[in-house]
Amino acid sequence: MRMVDLISKKKSSEILTDEEIQFMIDGYVKEEIPDYQMSAMLMAICFNGMTDHEMAVMTGAMAHSGDMVDLSAIEGIKVDKHSTGGVGDKTTLVIAPIVAACGGKVAKMSGRGLGHTGGTVDKMESIPGMRTSIPRDEFFDIVNKTGLSVIGQSGNLAPADKKLYALRDVTATVNSIPLIASSIMSKKLAAGSDSILLDVKTGSGAFMKTLDDSILLASKMVAIGEHEGRRMVALITDMDTPLGNAIGSSLEVIEAIQTLQGNGPEDLTSICLSLSANMLHLSGMGDVETCKNMAREAIASGRALGKLIDMVEAQGGDSSVVKDTNAFEKAPLSYEVRSDRDGYVTHMNTERCGIASVALGAGRVTKESAIDYSAGIILDKKVGAFVNKGDLLATLYASDEKMFAEAESILLEAYTISDEKPKMEPLIFARVSKEGIEKYS
Amino acid sequence: MRMVDLISKKKSSEILTDEEIQFMIDGYVKEEIPDYQMSAMLMAICFNGMTDHEMAVMTGAMAHSGDMVDLSAIEGIKVDKHSTGGVGDKTTLVIAPIVAACGGKVAKMSGRGLGHTGGTVDKMESIPGMRTSIPRDEFFDIVNKTGLSVIGQSGNLAPADKKLYALRDVTATVNSIPLIASSIMSKKLAAGSDSILLDVKTGSGAFMKTLDDSILLASKMVAIGEHEGRRMVALITDMDTPLGNAIGSSLEVIEAIQTLQGNGPEDLTSICLSLSANMLHLSGMGDVETCKNMAREAIASGRALGKLIDMVEAQGGDSSVVKDTNAFEKAPLSYEVRSDRDGYVTHMNTERCGIASVALGAGRVTKESAIDYSAGIILDKKVGAFVNKGDLLATLYASDEKMFAEAESILLEAYTISDEKPKMEPLIFARVSKEGIEKYS
Repeated sequence: MRMVDLISKKKSSEILTDEEIQFMIDGYVKEEIPDYQMSAMLMAICFNGMTDHEMAVMTGAMAHSGDMVDLSAIEGIKVDKHSTGGVGDKTTLVIAPIVAACGGKVAKMSGRGLGHTGGTVDKMESIPGMRTSIPRDEFFDIVNKTGLSVIGQSGNLAPADKKLYALRDVTATVNSIPLIASSIMSKKLAAGSDSILLDVKTGSGAFMKTLDDSILLASKMVAIGEHEGRRMVALITDMDTPLGNAIGSSLEVIEAIQTLQGNGPEDLTSICLSLSANMLHLSGMGDVETCKNMAREAIASGRALGKLIDMVEAQGGDSSVVKDTNAFEKAPLSYEVRSDRDGYVTHMNTERCGIASVALGAGRVTKESAIDYSAGIILDKKVGAFVNKGDLLATLYASDEKMFAEAESILLEAYTISDEKPKMEPLIFARVSKEGIEKYS
Repeated sequence: MRMVDLISKKKSSEILTDEEIQFMIDGYVKEEIPDYQMSAMLMAICFNGMTDHEMAVMTGAMAHSGDMVDLSAIEGIKVDKHSTGGVGDKTTLVIAPIVAACGGKVAKMSGRGLGHTGGTVDKMESIPGMRTSIPRDEFFDIVNKTGLSVIGQSGNLAPADKKLYALRDVTATVNSIPLIASSIMSKKLAAGSDSILLDVKTGSGAFMKTLDDSILLASKMVAIGEHEGRRMVALITDMDTPLGNAIGSSLEVIEAIQTLQGNGPEDLTSICLSLSANMLHLSGMGDVETCKNMAREAIASGRALGKLIDMVEAQGGDSSVVKDTNAFEKAPLSYEVRSDRDGYVTHMNTERCGIASVALGAGRVTKESAIDYSAGIILDKKVGAFVNKGDLLATLYASDEKMFAEAESILLEAYTISDEKPKMEPLIFARVSKEGIEKYS
């Protein structure tokens, strides 16, 4: 078998066999197939796509290119969640405790932030003492005892994906639904959970800018997971506006805690209840509506917040900041961004909001950048709000005054303020499962 | 400027600017742009193509990536010819002497054979003592004195093309009209002639299998050459049947000599007269019909054969083999391939005929293979002939008896013999110049 012939097949829209896909992924990981052949293949896939079967086989080969985490030491149905990434997305810190409080098991590996999107691991590390790198056995123990543990990716998970992703990034082949779906799902399959809830973000702050593309991506990922014997649901959720009001590590943790206390922003609370309900449903706890009531009760009773405290303590973190968020270290400087006109906030370029927070030191430009945990943005006005000239739009937090000018200018550009009241979009557009696509909009 | 952004533009069907194309070719030759980015770009070009302007700019950048041969030391209009390659194509050895005999100047660099197609340099080297590697000044001197010299490629001509071609070969990106056109024309532009005749082969033995593709490729190459100030004509000629009867180095040289003696096969003679006439026309010697009569006269008078002898002697070759072709070293063994049925030869898979000659040692499997100059095939029957069972189809020549079985089986498969008399195709299908496309079929 020769890679050049496989490239030629894909270029001519022929379908690759299971053996050919396995040969390609194995050869690439073993460095028997060079980058220059793989990049030509990736570009051919961008143009000609892959069948659902090709995609499932490739994802399986990528997942099996490294460790397959065995979660059988944890009792019960293990449920994972993956978000395609957005701005202000602190849902994991809310829903993992809710699911655990209702009897679910969440053994989750999360990522770090890069570019305009944040990562759960960075956010957790704003809690003093919090460990995110934990040996496999201890990780299992924590989940068995508390029902949840969220750690950074450890072990050699889907090395084929790591290598492919690095190549796609420099060859303009990132933006392809089969390649995105196989990349995400290979890691999720390797991470070992029985059920997986996908939170596919759509809109200006998301990787997928249109609803159609988001639904297509979700369908492909659901099909791949089901093909590999996992129970799958995907929700298509709004990322045309930042989620909640806080952007930045400790600011987001504080907002997550407030949400678990029942005092979170409406949009964040609503999305977290839906995500939790679907995770509980995937864990076999009943229909989605019943599960949503369980989730509401877990917040109202304080049991969900208790689960977050349990996890923080089990992972060596100082739970006093969870019990009293005033104990979090504060950014030394703040700056108020005010509207320069009257009108309705009709649109927010969410990606630019994320970039403004990076300009404040809250995010990473490159993988090596350090993060300022206390830096970030608290949005006071979001889409739909009416503002008068001079009204507060947002407060910026940073440790260096020089950062404010750039961040303010990016943020002001991100806001569109007009005379006409905007039509509000739903928070959740669709739900995709093996039963089909349910649209809510 | 970043290569990843240029790949992204081409992937989205945007047009690259002159500066971007120059950056890409320069960076690739300097190894600042890695193979894996270039192969992704090449694949994107295979799918989205290039405008005529992009193609011309890329070809210019590739030509200027190395030496640009300056032929100004040679007096008069220098005319070059390029064939896209085929089986039994010995036209250069016939037409360069004809053109020189009529007062034209041919300072030509030719290639070696690879795979099923032969190369002029290999064929010339079957003449004892013939030098094909000649210093630039001596090359100019020979052309000034005799009117012609054909040598191997020397100097650093279009290194961008060498590097790109090697990459295309292993990434399934050979088959793309803009990439083929820029590859051929970059070398021709660097080789320095004022006028260039392109012989674009079409059919089962050619790289371009269909007439439409051949005409498209020819049009693109003519446009590139004219954009760079060269006078261009392309003929689309038949390669659905081997040209002439001989395949193999010395066998083809002998057939070329017979053609210059006025005793060549009809198809070869006819194509050589048309090619010569167009080269003379490009040299400013009059209209094509007048030039064809000049070419006929150059053969009839023996002056064309005299020019071949002049060139052979100037390049150190033993001209006695040209004067008496019986003096060529003969293959020690021969084998007769006979028809296993009655009928008309309706089709010959010409690529397979070339592969049969390679099986006899007459061609190269890899660039490093040695060639047996005396090996090859003399076809006795070609398309249109009627054969009885047991009639001679072809005679094979080799130095090892073991080679005959494989070659015979490949050759027999290449022949299609049926009851119905085939419709004969024209030898020349079309002529492409800046004035437009003239179709003959």
